Amino acid sequence: MRTVAQQMLRTCNKLMSRKTPNDVIEAHPSNIETAAQMDNIQHLPSPPQAPSVRASVRHVETVERAHHGGGWLLSGIICINILILGCALVSGSAFNIVAITPEQRQIFLIILLLLTMLWILFYTVFTSRKDQAVLFKDRHAGPVWLRAGLLLFGFLSFLIDIFKIASYVGYLHCDSAVKVAFPVVQAVFLFVQTYFLWIHAKDCVELHTNLTRCGLTLTLSTNLVVWMTAVTEESIHQTEIPDLNVSVSQKMYKASYVKCTCSHSMCDTFKEASYYLYPFNIEYSLFASAMTYVMWKNVGRIVDDHSHYSVKFRPKDVCLGPVTGILLVVVGVVTFIVYKVDILKEDEKRNHALLIHFIMNIVIVSMMCLSTVIGCIIYRLDHREHVWEKNPTRSLDVGLLVGASLGQFIISYFSIVAEVATGAQGYLKSLNLFWAVLMVLQLSLQNYFIIEGLHREPFRVMQEAALHTNAHAIQEHEMSVVLKSRKSSYFLTSSCGKPPWKRRVLKEVCAFLLLGNVILWIMPAFGARPQFAHPIEIKFYTFTMWATIVNIGLPFGIFYRMHSVASLFEVFLIC
Amino acid sequence: MRTVAQQMLRTCNKLMSRKTPNDVIEAHPSNIETAAQMDNIQHLPSPPQAPSVRASVRHVETVERAHHGGGWLLSGIICINILILGCALVSGSAFNIVAITPEQRQIFLIILLLLTMLWILFYTVFTSRKDQAVLFKDRHAGPVWLRAGLLLFGFLSFLIDIFKIASYVGYLHCDSAVKVAFPVVQAVFLFVQTYFLWIHAKDCVELHTNLTRCGLTLTLSTNLVVWMTAVTEESIHQTEIPDLNVSVSQKMYKASYVKCTCSHSMCDTFKEASYYLYPFNIEYSLFASAMTYVMWKNVGRIVDDHSHYSVKFRPKDVCLGPVTGILLVVVGVVTFIVYKVDILKEDEKRNHALLIHFIMNIVIVSMMCLSTVIGCIIYRLDHREHVWEKNPTRSLDVGLLVGASLGQFIISYFSIVAEVATGAQGYLKSLNLFWAVLMVLQLSLQNYFIIEGLHREPFRVMQEAALHTNAHAIQEHEMSVVLKSRKSSYFLTSSCGKPPWKRRVLKEVCAFLLLGNVILWIMPAFGARPQFAHPIEIKFYTFTMWATIVNIGLPFGIFYRMHSVASLFEVFLIC
Repeated sequence: MRTVAQQMLRTCNKLMSRKTPNDVIEAHPSNIETAAQMDNIQHLPSPPQAPSVRASVRHVETVERAHHGGGWLLSGIICINILILGCALVSGSAFNIVAITPEQRQIFLIILLLLTMLWILFYTVFTSRKDQAVLFKDRHAGPVWLRAGLLLFGFLSFLIDIFKIASYVGYLHCDSAVKVAFPVVQAVFLFVQTYFLWIHAKDCVELHTNLTRCGLTLTLSTNLVVWMTAVTEESIHQTEIPDLNVSVSQKMYKASYVKCTCSHSMCDTFKEASYYLYPFNIEYSLFASAMTYVMWKNVGRIVDDHSHYSVKFRPKDVCLGPVTGILLVVVGVVTFIVYKVDILKEDEKRNHALLIHFIMNIVIVSMMCLSTVIGCIIYRLDHREHVWEKNPTRSLDVGLLVGASLGQFIISYFSIVAEVATGAQGYLKSLNLFWAVLMVLQLSLQNYFIIEGLHREPFRVMQEAALHTNAHAIQEHEMSVVLKSRKSSYFLTSSCGKPPWKRRVLKEVCAFLLLGNVILWIMPAFGARPQFAHPIEIKFYTFTMWATIVNIGLPFGIFYRMHSVASLFEVFLIC
Repeated sequence: MRTVAQQMLRTCNKLMSRKTPNDVIEAHPSNIETAAQMDNIQHLPSPPQAPSVRASVRHVETVERAHHGGGWLLSGIICINILILGCALVSGSAFNIVAITPEQRQIFLIILLLLTMLWILFYTVFTSRKDQAVLFKDRHAGPVWLRAGLLLFGFLSFLIDIFKIASYVGYLHCDSAVKVAFPVVQAVFLFVQTYFLWIHAKDCVELHTNLTRCGLTLTLSTNLVVWMTAVTEESIHQTEIPDLNVSVSQKMYKASYVKCTCSHSMCDTFKEASYYLYPFNIEYSLFASAMTYVMWKNVGRIVDDHSHYSVKFRPKDVCLGPVTGILLVVVGVVTFIVYKVDILKEDEKRNHALLIHFIMNIVIVSMMCLSTVIGCIIYRLDHREHVWEKNPTRSLDVGLLVGASLGQFIISYFSIVAEVATGAQGYLKSLNLFWAVLMVLQLSLQNYFIIEGLHREPFRVMQEAALHTNAHAIQEHEMSVVLKSRKSSYFLTSSCGKPPWKRRVLKEVCAFLLLGNVILWIMPAFGARPQFAHPIEIKFYTFTMWATIVNIGLPFGIFYRMHSVASLFEVFLIC
């Protein structure tokens, strides 16, 4: 009787997790996002394949955590407090150059960076070396491309810090030493954090869980405060007050250094060079935040990582999409350079530059809309199953995608309202309106395409699953009708497969959209601000309000493009 | 063999859902929040108790939805688009009195209201009457107190519309008829929607799922746009430009009616009266939004509602908490009235009013902090199990709680930064700083207390579960060691019970905090704006920026208090 019971329990387990070839099993919750996610945790018993040591650890751990489960709540509260204090300080120092000096803000940041490094040190030296600290790894977390991106952006951020140090050293005789200390500390932090995330991004920490949760939210909030600072500095640098053509930062810069001159001749060059690298530093902070967040979600998580499949990147599958995409990027970069040069000239040249920029953007966005529509049609024709297994990395991907797209949505809708209310006369106005409408359409379509794509069963896994299901079909003949019919419908779907042309078209669409997003990232990230070159919205909303909308919305819009590139790459691999 | 297998399957099912006495079983996802929640869906087979018709419906429906599951994505996109367009129009008309007139905004709202009513009509007449439309009800959704609140606030909102109609009819001879049409349409909408939510709030819709999802997000976004409009109007009304003592709305009002006089004498009275009722209209929209959102989450959800337990409200359990709380509310209301009267007078009286207001708030917040700390200590002493069953209503509760608290957090931190940076000299400054610091502490503690409380096993259920577990203990003797030991630890925890004094203290704390939140809701909801009466932040951040921070943060802060009252009431019932 006992063997029969165990046999049946195993079968039940298999059935429960039938839809997911990669069983991800959660022992106890202990994770919360907006806390909205707290309730959707599966309480499945351990799969019989797992070694007995895991089972016992799980039991001890479940009991232990039931009584000390406040860690995630405490760490969430710490995160909110650091973030909002950081937000107040950063915006205070941005809008008020007298009362909160940049030095005070930098001291706050230095304290945060040092605390974070202390925790990282503690984690790598003490926690992670213990035997029972990390029994499981989440194979979805920290994929190679994310870690490679982190390394690349980390290196470029390191360059910014070098430039900053070189520049501010020239002012040391008459300015605060904090301005040199901050980039030094940040450079060390970049090394420490990149090493930490490179090694530990996949860890599901089982030891010192409460401390680890708090440490991870500290790291997360430090990265987000650094991101806020960088975004604010970049926005101030890029915001030109109309009719003056002098950016706010230049004015502030002039005001603060009016009596303090650089002791070497390279100051301005270093400063200017560092601004060109800012977009990479912004992306570095976001990459690090995303990886830290996934680690936080994975604390105490029990993942069964025995069934691993790998999806390989085979660029030769596609041709038309990448070629058109690369062409688009090249043409986009050329027009962008023309725009950057001409926009600073007199009125006629300026309008010409805007005209080219608008037309180029409309062409890009229209082509992207068209290809996304084709992709969505293919999805309707294609009857692949959806994957709903628990996966914090994908949840975060989707959440960030939708959240970040709101930034561009807001800018576009405010633009549309202003244009329609004032009556779009003149070709520049009409083009601007058309661009904004197309952008809303493109964002909606692309969000649909990516989210739908991320939740599809990977092609290769489907074939394996079909074989697997076939083998088990006879053995499980006694099971209830409902389960059997669901299984066979699944089997039918999989074994029929998908004609190769559908896969190919989807891959082409992904590749094209990916490159489209690259060019839409390059333009605003490197300083295209047609929003301020064009007077309608500024007149309609007043400069302060419009600058606030753009400076809050655009960083999210830029991040959205970058994030879409990553997500589309994953969809490309899946389909 | 077949009977053994079925028996085991049943046992497995029971074990899987052992922790939750009220099995909530999800057939297929089809729900998304920030989409972050999408991946946490349980794919458990149907419980054996369910009638066979349910099983077959589920099967058909699962297959059907696998192929047409884009409805939630489409409805989400519709929601985002309506919301952001609404946001642009509302803020455009608030900041720009020339280009977007209130009439244009009202026409947009009328269209939204009419479309929503059309869908509600379609749903009540066609969808909900079909046999297979609503097979399940979510007993967590739309509890009595929420529906009663909806009815009450709906009635008060109806009064506002009556007042508005009476007031604007007086201007009909020289002003747009849209101003009368809007409250008329809104009054009808209030009836239709309140009826709809009263009857259908618990529905888990199984028919026309895609259309229903879109209809529900339409209703959701309409309510949120109405909420935004009300909040903006209320904020403009309450924002006094410093040194003028004339509110912006009065100026705008005077400007727009400079040549148009009311044809009857009661215009100003009706207008003034309607402003006192605004807080209730704001709450009505939020209540309706919350209920609609839960309905949206429940579309296509399969809930096993056979095991129902009821928790009754027994106010005689507690004494000290409510008495102190009521005392606090009474004293608070008295000082609030003194504040409202004195704040409009000359400098000395004004400072006196501020002093009393600050001291009163500090006393309230300190007492709340103290009682929350006591509550948290009791939680540590009390070893009740946590509940992690899927429950959209609770997920929403927690998400809204944390989200709404950010509003007050932001105001407090910005205040702290301004006070510290300028050096808090003088008793008013020191009190303001102290209040802000205490507020941050109180928010953190209260969030912790409520979230922890909402996730505790209800007391009565624990006792029942203990008996139940006991009965099954021998029968399931053959089960694996892990499962058994987990079960017995659960049994031990429950059967030991909790000494009554702990329960009683928790209930006292809940009751006191509930009333504390009521008075903290009353003050800002009925127009206390010490943020604008006190010059430090205005000087520090400039008036525009500070007004933006307060006018965005405070509506969330007010909602937070109201929502805390509801959540604390639930915690009171559970503990």
